[in-house]
Parts: sequence; structure tokens; C-alpha cells
Amino acid sequence: MAAIESFYEKVRLIHDLTEVQQNVDWDMQVMMPHKGAMQRANQAAALAGQVHLLATDPALGDAIAAMEGETSLDEAERADVREARRFYDREAKLPARLVTERAQAVALAQGAWEEARPKNDFGSFVPYLEKVVALTREMAALLKKTCAYDALLDEYEPGMTEAELRRIFADLKGRLLPLLDAVKGAPKRPDASILHGHFPRERQRAFCLKVIAEMGFDLDAGRLDESAHPFTNGTFQDVRLTTRYIEDFLPAALFGAMHEAGHGIYEQGLDAGKYRDPAGQACSLGIHESQSRFWENVIGRSRPFWECHFKPLKEAFPEALGGATAESFYGAVNNVAPSLIRVEADEATYNLHILVRFDIESGLLAGDVQPKELPGLWNAKMKEYLGITPPSDRDGVLQDIHWSAGLIGYFPTYALGNLYAAQFREAMAREIPDLAARLANGDLMAVKRWLNEKIHRHGRRWLAGELCQKVTGKPLGAGPFISYLKDKYAGIYGI
Amino acid sequence: MAAIESFYEKVRLIHDLTEVQQNVDWDMQVMMPHKGAMQRANQAAALAGQVHLLATDPALGDAIAAMEGETSLDEAERADVREARRFYDREAKLPARLVTERAQAVALAQGAWEEARPKNDFGSFVPYLEKVVALTREMAALLKKTCAYDALLDEYEPGMTEAELRRIFADLKGRLLPLLDAVKGAPKRPDASILHGHFPRERQRAFCLKVIAEMGFDLDAGRLDESAHPFTNGTFQDVRLTTRYIEDFLPAALFGAMHEAGHGIYEQGLDAGKYRDPAGQACSLGIHESQSRFWENVIGRSRPFWECHFKPLKEAFPEALGGATAESFYGAVNNVAPSLIRVEADEATYNLHILVRFDIESGLLAGDVQPKELPGLWNAKMKEYLGITPPSDRDGVLQDIHWSAGLIGYFPTYALGNLYAAQFREAMAREIPDLAARLANGDLMAVKRWLNEKIHRHGRRWLAGELCQKVTGKPLGAGPFISYLKDKYAGIYGI
Repeated sequence: MAAIESFYEKVRLIHDLTEVQQNVDWDMQVMMPHKGAMQRANQAAALAGQVHLLATDPALGDAIAAMEGETSLDEAERADVREARRFYDREAKLPARLVTERAQAVALAQGAWEEARPKNDFGSFVPYLEKVVALTREMAALLKKTCAYDALLDEYEPGMTEAELRRIFADLKGRLLPLLDAVKGAPKRPDASILHGHFPRERQRAFCLKVIAEMGFDLDAGRLDESAHPFTNGTFQDVRLTTRYIEDFLPAALFGAMHEAGHGIYEQGLDAGKYRDPAGQACSLGIHESQSRFWENVIGRSRPFWECHFKPLKEAFPEALGGATAESFYGAVNNVAPSLIRVEADEATYNLHILVRFDIESGLLAGDVQPKELPGLWNAKMKEYLGITPPSDRDGVLQDIHWSAGLIGYFPTYALGNLYAAQFREAMAREIPDLAARLANGDLMAVKRWLNEKIHRHGRRWLAGELCQKVTGKPLGAGPFISYLKDKYAGIYGI
Repeated sequence: MAAIESFYEKVRLIHDLTEVQQNVDWDMQVMMPHKGAMQRANQAAALAGQVHLLATDPALGDAIAAMEGETSLDEAERADVREARRFYDREAKLPARLVTERAQAVALAQGAWEEARPKNDFGSFVPYLEKVVALTREMAALLKKTCAYDALLDEYEPGMTEAELRRIFADLKGRLLPLLDAVKGAPKRPDASILHGHFPRERQRAFCLKVIAEMGFDLDAGRLDESAHPFTNGTFQDVRLTTRYIEDFLPAALFGAMHEAGHGIYEQGLDAGKYRDPAGQACSLGIHESQSRFWENVIGRSRPFWECHFKPLKEAFPEALGGATAESFYGAVNNVAPSLIRVEADEATYNLHILVRFDIESGLLAGDVQPKELPGLWNAKMKEYLGITPPSDRDGVLQDIHWSAGLIGYFPTYALGNLYAAQFREAMAREIPDLAARLANGDLMAVKRWLNEKIHRHGRRWLAGELCQKVTGKPLGAGPFISYLKDKYAGIYGI
């Protein structure tokens, strides 16, 4: 018993400090005054150093080894030991100096990104990004996986590899491009101009709050704020969402809020007795993204959702939406067209944005690409995959916060999320046969309960691939996603 | 040189983590969703445990001892060593278990207080307060000073003792009560009814922001938010102020904001090269409070300030203030009357509120008073000192957050702040002979520069008593405060 207690005491202490790291990061992005950046970088480095010290403490290694020798553990405990071992072995490869230096570098780089983007000034951001990339390459080399990319991917999507991603993405691309061609030459197109009226900020916020509450996001255990780049932060009973309000483009805030609430509902749905334990946390970033994309797209861009929600939306914005119907609005939010900004892309072209980033960050990590070359490379890749060229870095290479935050090897989980979401949808449709009717009646809780039951409460008891197999009966593939889009676009585009 | 570097690396790491503690505490009071309390308590305990581990690390003890053996240190470095020694010796007396348990208890007790106050439910708060008091008494016993009260006071006002406080407070009370009697029987009284009109929240906020910016509070290095109990948090380039808006009582938000901005300007005025060092931080809580009370009262309740600021205030609230003049408004904000709420008390009776708390917390610490007896004792003391009885605990014993936060032995620093402020005022008036004319012209920066120069930049290079001697040429006493009030009330009350 003493070994078990000692093990859980140690891993929970680390967990509590990572919650602090998250809170401080949220504050940096949402609340911190401009000039606080240097202090925050010192704070982040201090915290990262302490977490690393605990995570590499030989006494933790002993506690994990003792647990590995226990024969009486149940499945959940064995999963905790497996995850703790993975984390410990990983951290042990990294020197404290690198961990604190990188924590400081990413805190400063995020501030630099936040300043550079509105000014369209990639040049001012380059030295910060160079530092982050150099430290991240050093980290990847020390982690000693098959390749640098795999070393980073392992943190975000345990069990996944660059080679496997290439296989999945090639399959996805091979099926997606013909579909996009069909849409391009389709006999009819939705009119998306209705989305570009005037939508006052406060009314957008009120509508977002109404919808995420209906989805089951608990606002007594979370918040919705505003930030330059929407994100979700925190876990269990303290989950912070952000979105951003664009007064002349309705989808940004609403679908942003539904997306982040999808992440938030996952975190709030973790097992109350396990959320501080290694296997009690969310399964992987791909599974996390499946939850956000499920709510944003599978639900939020579905016909039955708007059969129920168009009326209150029109009541909120009677001037701008006076000429629209539920059906025409449903078409508008499913308009497919190559665009510059990933987070505003339609479901079909979205994945091409991910392929652009995947290609570029593979090159960055391999050392084939230098940070200062990114604007040119970005624009070339956008031309290659989407057929368009950003008019400025602000709407090009500077649009995402991720690389400044050291999140390299992270973007692919977004595309995986789309595939998982479509595959979960098939399973949900089998198990809730009257799903469409429920959605049309506004019963979003049926969706939440199913996701809670099948996915959220299990945390990372299983790897993402195993979870997918258990929930859907088959391994992850691009098939369900392509079928889902074909079904939807058949109606809207007449293809 | 290695010894010096090692020393500063260690103490700055501890400092950076205490900044994190502050930020997490700010978040708890201003941003955290209701249900996050238990997680926050675990986070606070984890952080406190790590800080304590570093603060009691024998390697830090060695580093301090090595510095004590260095002969080449300058005055600032010697002050750092003195402060580091004081902190180290203090922390070393406390077991980690007590530190983390207390951090958790105060996090939970603050949440309980926040729920209990609006419900006027002291009973629900009792078990939380009992836990905090028990742990605080245990802590005081381990710190082994002359008495439990001195042990706690030493953290807030180094060098001060309960005996010295009793002497100062007896002198203050002896001179204050006759002055209050004179005011009570005065031939004229200001009309304070003008303060109770309708003052829309947003316009109050705008006026507060304007005034604190004029005072020199840098809003790029700080924020102004709202909380149940106004407070200041953070240091140097990231300083968070809160105030609270009462739409039918103007002084609460405005003087609250000026008060907190006084604290904030102190923190922003610390030496940029020293703010992470032991002696680079603010001198004591008494000196801190002298800065807030200076701005709130000595400036904010002065005639020349309103000669300049009444016009824009009236423009902000033309309906409510239509019938007032600068002179009548100046009288209104200096109305002296016993009242229930400390933070809204006039300058003269304010100190009696402190005496009530000082008596009660001395008893709590000595074990002569039990937490459950507080409402009765509070009301009896209010009757004794101020001649009034609170109609409810909400406006009585539940009004302050301090005890729930474990801040026992802290209240006296508020009264000390009043005395320091008046004594600093005498020195400033000598050194800026045209001060009144400058204030009447809106030149608040003259005040800020003087305070920066004489007080802020020195941090805690000297103990509070020495700083007072250097700035004012004499030790702290009640004389300047009483003279200041007599001068002011002579005009307003004709006494």
C-alpha cells in the first residue's frame, strides 16, 4: 500500500503544478499587461524547472518501478503506471537547462508573435522563432526516436509516427482532391454573403454563451473570454475557453466558441476521481481535436442543428439575417472555398492547411528549412495545396501561435481530429438512431452524454488507436470522413 | 564571484515562484470559476510546498553563509543577505506539511468567505476559519518569537512588535478620541448626501482609469479589475489592481482605485535591477499602506485635488453632482461619522476599526477567543470603539477577507500606514513648497516622482523605521497624523 500511496502522491503533485503552468499560460494570453512579458518568462522558466525536477526525481523512478512490480493493480492503475513511465523516461532525457531555457524562449516568442502579427512584421519575430526552433531541435535529438518529428509527435499523439501520418495523409489527400474538384464544378453553390453583415460583439457573445451552455459546458466550472488566437486551457472544474469576435463575420466567434467548448466539455467530462492521475487526463490531442471538431462541424454545421438554432440566431441579428432561412444559412456555413485562414476554413479544405504546416515543420525539424525562409515557403505551399497566395504574412505564416509556443509536431493532430470525429459520428448515429430528430429539437445533451460515456470518462486509459477501435469497432481511416463530406455536399452542391 | 552568482540564482528563483503564487491568487479572486476552488487549493498547496522546499534548502543556507563571509559586498548586497537570512531562518522553522496544509486551508477558506458574506452566513464559514486559525497558531508557536502575535507581525512589518504597537496605538487613541469629540460637537458639518446619487458603473470605471493614469500608474504594466474585496497584486511591470463599483455610492470605487493605485505605483517604482532580489522588494506592509493611504486620503481627499478634479467628475456625472461645488464635494468626502465598513470609513474613525481587529486577533492568537465567538465579540468591540452595532455579520465580522486568507497580525499595518503617510506628507510639503498649487493644476506626477525617489526605489534596503527616519528625519509617531487631521477639520468643521 505504501508504494501505491507514494506513487500517487508524487504524480499528483506534478499534475497540480502543471495545472498552475496552464493557468499562468492562460493569464499570459488573456490578461497579462503588455510589459509583463519578461517577468512571465522568468516565472514560466522557474515553474518548468520545478516540474522537471520533480518529473526526473530518482525517487519518482523508484516509485514507478515499485508499482511495476505490484501484482494487485487494476486496469486503471496499470494505465497510470504505463503513462507515468512514458513521461518519466521522456523527461529524464532532457537536461534542466534546456527545459527552463525553452520555457523562457516560448514565453517570449509568444509575446513577440502577438506583436508581430498585427504589424505584419515577420522579421521582428524571426530571432524569437529561431531560438524556439533551435531548442526544440535540440530537445528532439535528445529524445532519440526514429526521427525528430516522431520525438515531438509522441508528446501530442502517443503511438503515432511521421511515417503513419504520411500514409494517412496521402490516403486523405487522394480522396479529398477529387471531392474538391467535384464541388468546384458543382451545378449549385450556397450563398455565403449572409455571413458578412454587421453582428454586434455583445450579441455574438450572448449567443455563444447560450449555445455552449446548451451543449453542456458548465459555466460554473469554466469561463469564456477573448484572445487573439482562440484556445482552451485548464481541466476538470476550471476550464477556460476563448474565442474572438469579428463584427463583420459571424462564423469566427460562434464556431470558435463551439469548437473550444468541445475541448472544454472533454476536460469537464474526465473522471472526477482520476483527473489528477497520469491516465486520468485526456487521451491525446487528436482525440481532443475530434471533440472540438465534432461540436464545431458535425453538430454545428449540420442541418438539424440549424433547424433548431436559426430562429434564435435570427432574433439576435434581425437586421443582418433578415433575408436568410435555416436552409440557406446551413448552406452558407458549409460553403467550400480555398481560403487563407485555417481556423476559418471549411471542413474540406481545412485539411490542406494542415498538410501545408506538416510539410513545413517536418523541414524545420530536419534542418532543411530555416525560420527566415518561412514566408516564401509558406506562400509556395499555399499555392501548391490551395491554389491561392496570401497577400501578407499576417494572413499567411503569422496566422498561428503554435510555432511561437514551441508546438511543432502538433498540427497533424488537427487533421486526425477531423478523421476521428467523422468515425465517432458513424458510431453515434448507429447508437442514437433518432439523433437528427433530437438535434432538430435542440437536445444537444444527448450528444454530450454519449461522448462523456464513450470517450471522456476513460481519459487515457487506452492509447488513441485503441480507444478508436473500442468506440467505433475499427482502426482510424479517412473513409468515414470522406463519406460524411460526400453525404453533406450531395445535398448542398447537388453532386 | 561564484558564491554571489549562486546566491542570486537561488533567491531569484524563489522570487519568480512567489510571483507565480501571486498571479494564481489574483486569478482565484478575480477570474476563477466558482467550482475551481478545490483544484486551486491543490495548486496552491503544491506551489507553497515547492517554494518552501527551495526556501529551506540547505544549499541556500550555505549560499547565504558564504555571502555573510564575503567582505566585498556593497550596501545593497548586504541588505539582500540580511533579508535572505531573515527569510531562511523563518522558513526553516516550519515543516513542509504545515506550509502546504495551510496554503490549502486558506485557499478553501477564502472561497468559503466569498460565499458566506453575501448570504450573511457566518456559521458556514466557522469550520474553515477554525482550520486557518489553528494552523496559524501552530505556525506562530514554531516561529518562537516573544509572543504569537510578534511571530506573525514579523512577516508583515519586520522590526515591529505587539508591545510597540500597543504603545503607538494607545498614544493615537488618546489623541484621536478628543478630536472626534470636537468634530462631533462642531459648529458646522459637511453634507455627504451628494455621494449617494446614481453613478453608472461604466462611467465610474472610466473616471477611475483617468485618475490612476494621471497619478502615474502605468496601465501597460498593470490592470484595473473588479473584485469583492479591492486589492493589489503583483510587482514591477505586472501589477493588478481591483476596485468595486457601487452605483449608489461614489467613493467606494474611486477612492478604492486611488488607494490600490498607490500600492501599484510603489510596486512599479521598485528598482528595475533589484525587484527580484530579497531587499529589492517593498519595505514593509506599513510602508506599503502609507503609499495607498497617501494617494487615497492625503491627495484624494485634499482641497487642491478637488479644485482640479471636481470639474471632470461633474462632467462625468452631471445629473448626480449638478448641485455640488468643488468645495462642498471636498467637504462631503471628508465627512466624519462612525460607520460599519472599514474600507469606507473616514480617515479619523478608520483607525478605530483597526483597533477592533487588533484586539480580536490578539485574542484569537493567544487562544483566548474562539472563531465561533467572533460575531458577538465583534459587535461588542464596535459598540465600545465606535458606538455602533452592525445589523448583520455581512456588515460586521464578515466584511474583511483577511482572516480567511490567514492574514492575522496584518491589520495593524493599515493604521501604521496612516501614520507614515502623514509623516511623509510633512516631509514632502517641506521639499515641494508649491505642492498645493501643483495639485490644483493637476500635476500629480510631482507627488509620484517624490515618492519614487524617496521611498519606492529603495525597496527594503532599510527596515521601515530606518526608512522613516531617513525620509522624515524622525521616528514614527502619531503627532503628524493628528496635526494633519486637525488642520483639515479646522476648515471643514470650524473647530
